[in-house]
Amino acid sequence: MSRLLIGNRPSDDLVGTWGKAAMGWWAQRLFWFVRDGDVLVLPEAPDEAFLSYVTELTGTDRTSLTVVVRPSGNRPGDWLLDPELAHRTQQALTGRAVEEVFALCPNESVVELARALGAESAVPGHLFLDQGGALIADSKAVFRTLAAGSDLPLPEGGVCANQESAYRVITRLLRTDRPVILKKEFLAAGNGNEVLTLTEDIKVNGAGRAVLLSDDPQSVRIYLNERWDWLTEGRRHRVVIEEYHPGSRGVFAEFWIGDEEIALGGQGEMVAEPVADHSYLPAPDLTHDQESALMTGGRKLCEVLQAMGYRGVLSADAIVPANGDEANHSVLFTEYNGLVTGSTHVYHLGKRLAGADYAHDRLLAEYVAWPVASFAEARKHLENEGIAYDPAKRTGVVLLNSWRDSPGVVPYCLIAEDVEAAERLKERLK
Amino acid sequence: MSRLLIGNRPSDDLVGTWGKAAMGWWAQRLFWFVRDGDVLVLPEAPDEAFLSYVTELTGTDRTSLTVVVRPSGNRPGDWLLDPELAHRTQQALTGRAVEEVFALCPNESVVELARALGAESAVPGHLFLDQGGALIADSKAVFRTLAAGSDLPLPEGGVCANQESAYRVITRLLRTDRPVILKKEFLAAGNGNEVLTLTEDIKVNGAGRAVLLSDDPQSVRIYLNERWDWLTEGRRHRVVIEEYHPGSRGVFAEFWIGDEEIALGGQGEMVAEPVADHSYLPAPDLTHDQESALMTGGRKLCEVLQAMGYRGVLSADAIVPANGDEANHSVLFTEYNGLVTGSTHVYHLGKRLAGADYAHDRLLAEYVAWPVASFAEARKHLENEGIAYDPAKRTGVVLLNSWRDSPGVVPYCLIAEDVEAAERLKERLK
Repeated sequence: MSRLLIGNRPSDDLVGTWGKAAMGWWAQRLFWFVRDGDVLVLPEAPDEAFLSYVTELTGTDRTSLTVVVRPSGNRPGDWLLDPELAHRTQQALTGRAVEEVFALCPNESVVELARALGAESAVPGHLFLDQGGALIADSKAVFRTLAAGSDLPLPEGGVCANQESAYRVITRLLRTDRPVILKKEFLAAGNGNEVLTLTEDIKVNGAGRAVLLSDDPQSVRIYLNERWDWLTEGRRHRVVIEEYHPGSRGVFAEFWIGDEEIALGGQGEMVAEPVADHSYLPAPDLTHDQESALMTGGRKLCEVLQAMGYRGVLSADAIVPANGDEANHSVLFTEYNGLVTGSTHVYHLGKRLAGADYAHDRLLAEYVAWPVASFAEARKHLENEGIAYDPAKRTGVVLLNSWRDSPGVVPYCLIAEDVEAAERLKERLK
Repeated sequence: MSRLLIGNRPSDDLVGTWGKAAMGWWAQRLFWFVRDGDVLVLPEAPDEAFLSYVTELTGTDRTSLTVVVRPSGNRPGDWLLDPELAHRTQQALTGRAVEEVFALCPNESVVELARALGAESAVPGHLFLDQGGALIADSKAVFRTLAAGSDLPLPEGGVCANQESAYRVITRLLRTDRPVILKKEFLAAGNGNEVLTLTEDIKVNGAGRAVLLSDDPQSVRIYLNERWDWLTEGRRHRVVIEEYHPGSRGVFAEFWIGDEEIALGGQGEMVAEPVADHSYLPAPDLTHDQESALMTGGRKLCEVLQAMGYRGVLSADAIVPANGDEANHSVLFTEYNGLVTGSTHVYHLGKRLAGADYAHDRLLAEYVAWPVASFAEARKHLENEGIAYDPAKRTGVVLLNSWRDSPGVVPYCLIAEDVEAAERLKERLK
């Protein structure tokens, strides 16, 4: 028996070409899930220095792993569906049955590859995924429908399939002291979000840009005419429009939905400046009410998705409004993600390195970018400074991925006692 | 307290302008739901002859009803959102609170009108509907995802968001002895369906047309290039592609999903020639296994939609394949409809006229078109022939709507002991 780990990105149906150029690098977060004997399917050859680094840290036998890489050449079509890839994967399995398929982005292509290997039923939720499930489990529009249907607290807003609907929702919400956020249905990490505001006096995070409108409602019309195609990916998708809460904290609770059980994976805070910059797991200093509301709502969403046939990771995202008396809701839910998120590998490695109960006495502080000359340089610096992760102390710096040439950075995770200790570690990265 | 009945059609987001020209006529099926004291909101002035006919038959006091019609003139925008309509409806309510909103097509416009009347919470499932729920509860694509997610029996097939996906599904399924059906995500009564076939030797029902392809897979490419915009309404929607089962029977079970209970409304058979032509309620001669599979699957879908927050009518459609040994499935589910269907008013009037248990000893045979010169002419003919519905005998002909000028027909329902008795009644319509 063998596990099959698939390093795929969201399909073009969801996000177009967004992130496609860097998908080989991006997919390497998959390594943090690796166990002895796994077969890995990757869009590009792995950075061996990074793969060795991960297997050393996690005590995995590198030689027990088999890596399958898609055929070279700029071939048209979804690389997961290339018959040559299925052939190579079949060979890599050397007759072993597939007991589990774990994909970064579970969708119908993953099911189709698994089917070619006779392992369709090893994909969690394969029946749901094979019939367009990823278009539901990743959609910010469907999220809003389901969250509202369960009466979870949400920012005021709507799901818009046409410009008139968008115009009505925007003009109903937008005030000088109340900006509005528009979200593409499927994009991630704030990159598909824009904030509309009537004043420059506003700090925006969680969105790629802010657009300053005049009082004249015509400026909303002009904005929509200008941006509708962008917002909808050429009218393919819907747009979520919500009241924007400046200064709110972004938090999440991530679960694994199985056939019977729903298990908490981890919870944390995402800090966007203005788009995803760093995160803390667990979220520091949540009040009991905030954490309880996040968990209760997150579990409720999982129960609904479970009833619908989805299996796998589900992250429920919410904001803690700066003005806490927001209709007495301590959190407002903002989206879900039915895929391996930018936090899944972080709490997985946290558990592997610092123990399943790391959250009791450790904080994971994940940063997307350490500007450094190379991966080797990064490792050397950690050694020289004596701040590489130390299993005995259960503190130190972990490099989360290989060096990314543009813009020349390595993402990393600080494992420390608390935010202050993490800050001190971070300063030693120079 | 008062009930508000809304005679709206599916929104342009779902079906474009399909059926828009006839929406005033179409909306009059709403009359079969009327009770004393109701306020009706209609896109056009009702045909008083038909409204009186319905109130007489159902024992409703016509003078207790208030009819609100949208302002005249070809105004742009969704007529339900016209502030003048809300104003007129408010006046019609004369201070009475709205205890229930019943709309033919529950969606966010219905919620928005109700909100303007302070009656948002009187719309069943208003939280779900207000956030784009109609785009989920009416979608053939989402249906397939959810039905598969519950492991219901389905025709082989897939949900396609792009041409490559469609090409793969079609070529996987299409054989000389196995045609394929493509379905628009939101259209109704078979009008958004096309069958692809490799042979002319096939009888098609349930689809607007059949397309004869050659053996060369290029013909699938050409077909998709030609029809993709039509199939997707300009790339806005997904396409469902399934194995087509010639000669199968189309059946349905329709439920009401409440907060707690799920209640059967009625079940029946739809006969398409080639698109919706007539229906029988209940479906004649279903085997115990067929009926049981239809009910079990239909209830399962209702449970999922209930968990998602939907409330209201849900019709589960299925086929009984001509070749019953189809992987031992007695029925295969083909779509759902979360709105008042073309059958809802039929079993409602059946219950009102022939009793809640009509299905024990009566058959409702509904036909979409009786070619006749006028509504008055139709009534006169029924009287002259002595075949107008007779409450004492619990048999006879009921006219389902007013006369439709193009093509000059009245839809009707035969209430009889069985199919043979209904056929005899039908012959007397000349």
